[in-house]
Amino acid sequence: MSEAFDHLTGEPAPKRPQSTSRVTVVTVEDGKRRRHGDRVATEEPMEIRVEGPGMEQRNVAVTMRTPGNDFELAVGFCVSERVVAHPHDIASVAYCLSGDAPQEYNVVTVTTRTPVDLEVHRRAFVSNASCGLCGKTTLDQVEAACDPIEAPLRVSRSVLIALPDRLRAQQAVFDATGGVHAAASFSADGELQCLREDIGRHNALDKVIGWAALARRVPLSEAVLLVSGRMSFEIVQKAAMAGIPVIGAVSAPSSLAVQTAARLGITVVGFLRGDHFNIYSHPERVDLAG
Amino acid sequence: MSEAFDHLTGEPAPKRPQSTSRVTVVTVEDGKRRRHGDRVATEEPMEIRVEGPGMEQRNVAVTMRTPGNDFELAVGFCVSERVVAHPHDIASVAYCLSGDAPQEYNVVTVTTRTPVDLEVHRRAFVSNASCGLCGKTTLDQVEAACDPIEAPLRVSRSVLIALPDRLRAQQAVFDATGGVHAAASFSADGELQCLREDIGRHNALDKVIGWAALARRVPLSEAVLLVSGRMSFEIVQKAAMAGIPVIGAVSAPSSLAVQTAARLGITVVGFLRGDHFNIYSHPERVDLAG
Repeated sequence: MSEAFDHLTGEPAPKRPQSTSRVTVVTVEDGKRRRHGDRVATEEPMEIRVEGPGMEQRNVAVTMRTPGNDFELAVGFCVSERVVAHPHDIASVAYCLSGDAPQEYNVVTVTTRTPVDLEVHRRAFVSNASCGLCGKTTLDQVEAACDPIEAPLRVSRSVLIALPDRLRAQQAVFDATGGVHAAASFSADGELQCLREDIGRHNALDKVIGWAALARRVPLSEAVLLVSGRMSFEIVQKAAMAGIPVIGAVSAPSSLAVQTAARLGITVVGFLRGDHFNIYSHPERVDLAG
Repeated sequence: MSEAFDHLTGEPAPKRPQSTSRVTVVTVEDGKRRRHGDRVATEEPMEIRVEGPGMEQRNVAVTMRTPGNDFELAVGFCVSERVVAHPHDIASVAYCLSGDAPQEYNVVTVTTRTPVDLEVHRRAFVSNASCGLCGKTTLDQVEAACDPIEAPLRVSRSVLIALPDRLRAQQAVFDATGGVHAAASFSADGELQCLREDIGRHNALDKVIGWAALARRVPLSEAVLLVSGRMSFEIVQKAAMAGIPVIGAVSAPSSLAVQTAARLGITVVGFLRGDHFNIYSHPERVDLAG
């Protein structure tokens, strides 16, 4: 029996997650589209649990992370968030082995030498990267909460490639500091509707969604969203809740952002730089002729 | 009585926070240092509360945000995180006015038209930007937990300006995807000790701290940390917990990152690009002659 099979059940064991994931993208360059394989950073939830003498095992965090060095991540979190008073208090670190269940690579348990009073050391046990969500559960909830987006919006190549400069031109706080993210909604013909800035990418998007909600413009089924920097799962989830059919990013999307967008009917455009970009999901909304 | 005073108490009212904050920086360029005023993006906690008919007021999130468009942020969060089922359920948004207390610009209350079942709609009410912490309380806790860092480490200008290329040269996942952050610890003479990548900047740093903890190298009092991108409060907090005396970033630090580092004895270097950089706190550790 190969190591790819779980020795208890005979079922194929879960594959150990990799730090990059394969995706198929459509690269648009010089007005031509080319379909090819590419890699994106893997984004997956990891749960950190703590157990020690005389205390029950307890979840202290769920973080959206890139797999790799998971034990270091769990130990580093426990040290930097004061779950343990001192690194020497950590006795061992292990992936979760719960009874007959197959090996679980997204749950890491830190065992301490002494009991940990989580109420005393507790700061705010939330995750860091994007939010404290359990990916699978949340993904199901997001899909249950959102009808797949079927907005017939189409956006042309010429409009898409003009968006980053329009975003950049309006970033007042960035101009003053060089240190904030931006999110903006545009009409399908590239007119800026609302741009907001924040030290947190998710806050910038929430401000845009809040602007739309207060203006009674939700769902934003006619809007194209552009975010500075990268696109994580949570950006796609928030856009889905607001009914936005097309999301662009100046940089790369994560694996979970692409998967979620594909399932929810959202067009994801990444690496929107100069006159080229990649389409990661639902390319039917992008009009190359325009 | 001017509007700058609270009408109930006669005390100076808290100033409405601005989206940028003034700092004094030391810019090092061509081997010369120049002290001058500059601006960084403000980072402050904002608490979002929800109340509705027949339900008690309840905290749903604390997010580290850049002040500005706070009502939009609160409303957008409630919509994108399904605190409310529909934007029309929101009746009003207000800054907190709690009895005789002065106006509080970092607490926003969203009032709904119908009762909100937070248990049903609840996804994961954690904040987005960096973590779900209440800045003031946490800052106090961080300061209580950490002795100010008094490590006598000194790092030379020539070592600092060489670090970004050394970080970049080792970013394997970034090379494959263009979509991850990195954090790395270096010795004071610029030798790479540990580099980790993750879709979340905080996770990349936690991995480095976990590496150090597992190798029994905490506190990292001889280390210089470099992070890709920006530096938020939480990066400084985590570095402080690991005892790191010097932190560099390729991009800008936030206001709270600078304030925290100044109070905790940490040297913050930002905009580390080419042969120049800014020092935001504790410049005594940077040796220009070297």
